[in-house]
Amino acid sequence: MPFPLDTPVSVGLIGFGAFGRLVAAHLAPHADLRVHDPFVPSGVIAEAGAVPATLAEAAACPVVILATPVSTLAAVVEGMTPHLRPGALVLDVGSVKVRPAEIMRAGLPKDVDIVATHPLFGPQSARDGLRGLKIAVCPVRGERARRVGAFLRRALGLTVILTTPEAHDREAAAVQGLTHLIAKVLVAMEPLPTRMTTRSFDLVMQAVGMVRHDAPEVYHAIERENPFSAEVRRRFFDLAAGMNAELGEGDSRREA
Amino acid sequence: MPFPLDTPVSVGLIGFGAFGRLVAAHLAPHADLRVHDPFVPSGVIAEAGAVPATLAEAAACPVVILATPVSTLAAVVEGMTPHLRPGALVLDVGSVKVRPAEIMRAGLPKDVDIVATHPLFGPQSARDGLRGLKIAVCPVRGERARRVGAFLRRALGLTVILTTPEAHDREAAAVQGLTHLIAKVLVAMEPLPTRMTTRSFDLVMQAVGMVRHDAPEVYHAIERENPFSAEVRRRFFDLAAGMNAELGEGDSRREA
Repeated sequence: MPFPLDTPVSVGLIGFGAFGRLVAAHLAPHADLRVHDPFVPSGVIAEAGAVPATLAEAAACPVVILATPVSTLAAVVEGMTPHLRPGALVLDVGSVKVRPAEIMRAGLPKDVDIVATHPLFGPQSARDGLRGLKIAVCPVRGERARRVGAFLRRALGLTVILTTPEAHDREAAAVQGLTHLIAKVLVAMEPLPTRMTTRSFDLVMQAVGMVRHDAPEVYHAIERENPFSAEVRRRFFDLAAGMNAELGEGDSRREA
Repeated sequence: MPFPLDTPVSVGLIGFGAFGRLVAAHLAPHADLRVHDPFVPSGVIAEAGAVPATLAEAAACPVVILATPVSTLAAVVEGMTPHLRPGALVLDVGSVKVRPAEIMRAGLPKDVDIVATHPLFGPQSARDGLRGLKIAVCPVRGERARRVGAFLRRALGLTVILTTPEAHDREAAAVQGLTHLIAKVLVAMEPLPTRMTTRSFDLVMQAVGMVRHDAPEVYHAIERENPFSAEVRRRFFDLAAGMNAELGEGDSRREA
């Protein structure tokens, strides 16, 4: 199935970090990829089966995917704007959606359609393929979000969740905020037992293993760029402190 | 394979809560079970294929298994002592091992062998059978821990970890202490998202699902009766608070 525009379509991919490479690997059969990343040697891009491109070349494609850290998105949007063609479709793939949607809506020309996405997986969980994995898709400007969703579902086998940036960030604050926070604390506590473990502890550590090698930018975006994650953290710590106090009181009662 | 004594052996089981029932279900094919639990009607015990018994009858068996909460163990040991036969083997199945081992060593007659065990699973994880699940086995008095281990391995398919009460409690403080603590906080935060989830969050919630229905006595034993769990909790909260502070500082820097 062709990417939802013309066939064959050129797709500009800006950012070739861990996630940009994952995007490239799965879109390569469906599109002619032009990849721009000033921090990655052209040879690495070419080896991955994509065409190295300047920012101007990547931004001039009819479809442009932004796979850069959320913190650099505003600068990238500003830099690419002069090169965008009217009627282009711009997508991002960041872990949060409220701020990127705002940045893209404010910075990109009015004649460009915008769809914000968040693939709810990373290189670890996608190791055995994309089928059945989830992706959140948020229409930001224009009417092409449903066509994008249809492509992701049919061509890549993804489960598409059509939502809004705010609804996404509310849920992601709990889902990713808690997972990454717990994982970071447990990694800091290592070495942890590996022999005398329960099945439930094994599951928790398996979850830790899936996110522990995520780029620091991912943790940063999840915990800092999501407007709802500070509140989720506060609830987690308040409840945890309450339970600790309860157990502590019990200890002193017993000693008394 | 017969229980490691004579054939057929009578096994006294004291305590018929969730875990006592699990023990009964798996030992029934290998032993003649006499079950004592003053809080469970005889009919319930009989329906489970075991013989209801008084404390004296259960304690007079050549093998006696204590499946009562750790907090009541001292009283049970005191009550059963007059009925024990010389050369009997007494085992417990509690979630902690240092205190129960001390209580049994101090309270049980010198001519009784003692093996402390901790099946590292519960009714949830044992739903599909015991094969491959783990059990910690600690010799406390006498020479029968290895024979007990061999029975558990061969007859029940368990993976046996021969260890000491202290080594057990150190590892369990992390394994079970952290799992139950995290689970309790997450349950208190419900409703949590179920639709827009990642694979790692799904694994964490699967772990939560395995322990959330554990009896309150299990949580109590894990967090309060394990001499190392307060320290594990302290490390968890210190690290978590440090990470929260780091993220918080970032927030204020951004706003400034």
